[in-house]
Amino acid sequence: MKLKIKDMDVETGGPLVAVMHVDDAKMLDFHHGDRVRLTYKDRKAVSILNLAESKRSVPIGSIGCYEEVLRKLGAKGGQKVGIALEEKPASVQYIKKKLNGGTLTYKEFYQIVSDISQNKLNDIELTYFVSACHTNVMTLRETIDLTKAMIATGDVLKLKKKPVIDKHCVGGVAGNRTTMIIVPILAAAGLTVPKTSSRSITSPAGTADTVEVLTKVSFNVDRMKKIVNKIGACMVWGGSINLAPADDRIIRVEHPLSIDSRSQLLASIIAKKASVSATHVLVDIPVGRGAKIETMDKARDLKRQFEVIGRSVGISIKVIITDGSQPIGNGLGPALEARDVMWILRNDEKGPRDLRKKSVMMAGLILEMAGKARKGQGKEKALDLLESGKAYKKMQEIIRAQGGKVKRPEDLPIAKFAQDVFAAKSGRITHIDNTYISKIARAAGAPRDSTAGVYLYLHKNDLVKKGEILFTIYSNSRQRLDFAREQTRLNVGFEIK
Amino acid sequence: MKLKIKDMDVETGGPLVAVMHVDDAKMLDFHHGDRVRLTYKDRKAVSILNLAESKRSVPIGSIGCYEEVLRKLGAKGGQKVGIALEEKPASVQYIKKKLNGGTLTYKEFYQIVSDISQNKLNDIELTYFVSACHTNVMTLRETIDLTKAMIATGDVLKLKKKPVIDKHCVGGVAGNRTTMIIVPILAAAGLTVPKTSSRSITSPAGTADTVEVLTKVSFNVDRMKKIVNKIGACMVWGGSINLAPADDRIIRVEHPLSIDSRSQLLASIIAKKASVSATHVLVDIPVGRGAKIETMDKARDLKRQFEVIGRSVGISIKVIITDGSQPIGNGLGPALEARDVMWILRNDEKGPRDLRKKSVMMAGLILEMAGKARKGQGKEKALDLLESGKAYKKMQEIIRAQGGKVKRPEDLPIAKFAQDVFAAKSGRITHIDNTYISKIARAAGAPRDSTAGVYLYLHKNDLVKKGEILFTIYSNSRQRLDFAREQTRLNVGFEIK
Repeated sequence: MKLKIKDMDVETGGPLVAVMHVDDAKMLDFHHGDRVRLTYKDRKAVSILNLAESKRSVPIGSIGCYEEVLRKLGAKGGQKVGIALEEKPASVQYIKKKLNGGTLTYKEFYQIVSDISQNKLNDIELTYFVSACHTNVMTLRETIDLTKAMIATGDVLKLKKKPVIDKHCVGGVAGNRTTMIIVPILAAAGLTVPKTSSRSITSPAGTADTVEVLTKVSFNVDRMKKIVNKIGACMVWGGSINLAPADDRIIRVEHPLSIDSRSQLLASIIAKKASVSATHVLVDIPVGRGAKIETMDKARDLKRQFEVIGRSVGISIKVIITDGSQPIGNGLGPALEARDVMWILRNDEKGPRDLRKKSVMMAGLILEMAGKARKGQGKEKALDLLESGKAYKKMQEIIRAQGGKVKRPEDLPIAKFAQDVFAAKSGRITHIDNTYISKIARAAGAPRDSTAGVYLYLHKNDLVKKGEILFTIYSNSRQRLDFAREQTRLNVGFEIK
Repeated sequence: MKLKIKDMDVETGGPLVAVMHVDDAKMLDFHHGDRVRLTYKDRKAVSILNLAESKRSVPIGSIGCYEEVLRKLGAKGGQKVGIALEEKPASVQYIKKKLNGGTLTYKEFYQIVSDISQNKLNDIELTYFVSACHTNVMTLRETIDLTKAMIATGDVLKLKKKPVIDKHCVGGVAGNRTTMIIVPILAAAGLTVPKTSSRSITSPAGTADTVEVLTKVSFNVDRMKKIVNKIGACMVWGGSINLAPADDRIIRVEHPLSIDSRSQLLASIIAKKASVSATHVLVDIPVGRGAKIETMDKARDLKRQFEVIGRSVGISIKVIITDGSQPIGNGLGPALEARDVMWILRNDEKGPRDLRKKSVMMAGLILEMAGKARKGQGKEKALDLLESGKAYKKMQEIIRAQGGKVKRPEDLPIAKFAQDVFAAKSGRITHIDNTYISKIARAAGAPRDSTAGVYLYLHKNDLVKKGEILFTIYSNSRQRLDFAREQTRLNVGFEIK
């Protein structure tokens, strides 16, 4: 069977895709999403088949080829290519097994993750995999095997100087920018900390967004390795490093239904830690009203899973359960959070005490885990590294190594319009809802506008008088400021009793 | 936010699709598969967003529009369109509910099926729906509600002359072309039989493929209605009638994993019967080794569900459980099966007795259901309609009304190369595997080549001598014939003991 190439003049950006008219497909018994083997001279390209229903798109007797296919074949529009049905990848049957309630082995997970990484599965097949893992709860054994498969199929950043430290926060708490304080403290103690962070998904800022206020965050693995080898640490955006290609594709099909699959999340977090050669990892699970994890039972269950999976892949994971019932730090939004961090590192009294305290506690635990402090003395050592200015000095090194210039906290640009929000009555603040305050900061423009956000003056348990200022909203647009102000009226997230 | 249109010069054949460069999408916080509302002057087009990673495909600041989008907007390449994020359709949250183990209501199913019919869900969302219904077993109540939703969202062929008869076979048995004998018998008795059938998926021939050997099968609803009103019956291809648009889309995403979801199948079969205004339906569940349903328990469970759902939507459904452990009829492949059917209708002794007997039994049951015969006397009446030549006369009317010319069975073209297969030993035939014999017929070229296939001389329980002919393979290609011959050696599907 030979078909004439129609050059579609479009790149997919990765997957090999070919398009056939639906009448040809019926005749050949081909279906949408089938894999077809296209051949031209001695070259071949296994492509995902799409069907066109209009002859204008792809005429009968032709095969529409995207640029990736043409490059792989070394062929041009008008030339003839052979076409045949290609067997489905082996992983498809394993996905079906899981969908039907079966339990998968390491080898089966390896095949699936490997096929995902190599772009061999189409969106429909990938969705069935995510769906199957979500609905047919995975056993701990399966989660471990999935983790190992993700590690085995991904790249690894090899670092010689052990121990290699990483940390992770399960998220859901506004502010909470501990990473940017912990990393300089640990690096100042001589530990290796190759930190990758994510950008915001639903919060006013992710760690990568906040670091980006101070310096660059997009590097490839080689550049990242050079920085870490030189100064012992880095703080880069994980999305720019291609250490877990399967993960990005999985997240893409999770997005339409906001699927949040526990096992997949665990596997992907731990695999990412393994991919930077981490030997010791501290995981923070904030728990409480308005946090991602709302009950202690769930937090403890998650803690146990982190520890068991960590052990099974040779990483020492310590998990702490912290108070996640309110924002941590005063600023919410990239620049406002970066300013808080810099104030703390410079031991400026404007630095928020809650964020400072939590960061020192966590850094202390890691110093103990990594053998840099005796049990019970880590916190003291962390505090010393912070107060002596050594941590700030390390932060300056990191900023410069990543291509930034060190600025004073006061010189970081903040959005030009401000709007204060006042207490409607007197009393004690009993709750500040993370989701509520994040919505306001995002309405003001964060994180796209890095200078926008919210600055809190009060925290839970503080006493407040009617008319006293609770927080200020910053935005570069009056319209957005009004929109953010409206959000404060629609929700009840700041409780005073 | 305004973007410049890039005319992609491609039609999708239905769905509205727009493509944005991945960097623009990141900036706007848009994701692959999101719905975006494009606006041009006073017109709008809600489209599914795809992301391009190459600037050659879609430059920064541009939006690539497929033809359907441009037509809907009345806009051209180079013009500026507004873009904003559109809310997800309500059905997305219901799909998530089902995925998380919830139970859906009629209203929720209606919204989902309606959104599927209107092409509002992307492949990923649709796959989650299929997956959720497959993995989280549906209650009978849910299956009924899904059936009702499918009926309510589809078109209906309105027919005045009641009762309106339909039949359905669960499938899995090679040959078994009862429809083409039953329909003429019933129509000859004065019943209305607006029969739609499918093409083959994994068998050597579907009923639509076999009817097509004798006459045309592709009609729209209006033409179908005219034929039925004129001669009381038709036998057309269901795929050409747009009575169940959601169903086709669901099948498309089931295909990659060959998902066979019981509840969805039940709902879709019964909704299709309702869409032709059927009042009485006979369902055949073949059961046995090598059939789709292998145990009596499963067959009885399915029977009960058919009856309950039928009752709930006002259709009288009778279910029979028949022997599905071997092929029925001698010919396998469109022309060979059509020849068997015509021999039976002409009362030619070459007509296979098993197919004749089963068809008469089924036609008799329907005559009783529809009040055309007293209980226990249907079979006799069916036999009379067949033997008197009235059924054959009706078949001739159907063939002509659908645009065909009546041919003698002997004049139907059969593939030019033949290869006999002989018994390797003497004994009794204890099993003829449906899957095995179908594979051979398909390897020979059926159903794409309508003249190819297999002709059986012996059936289960027949005595055979070593070297006696078991069956003949027909093909138009020597290569295919050899390939089919090889299949007979690889499998053990013809057991002699």
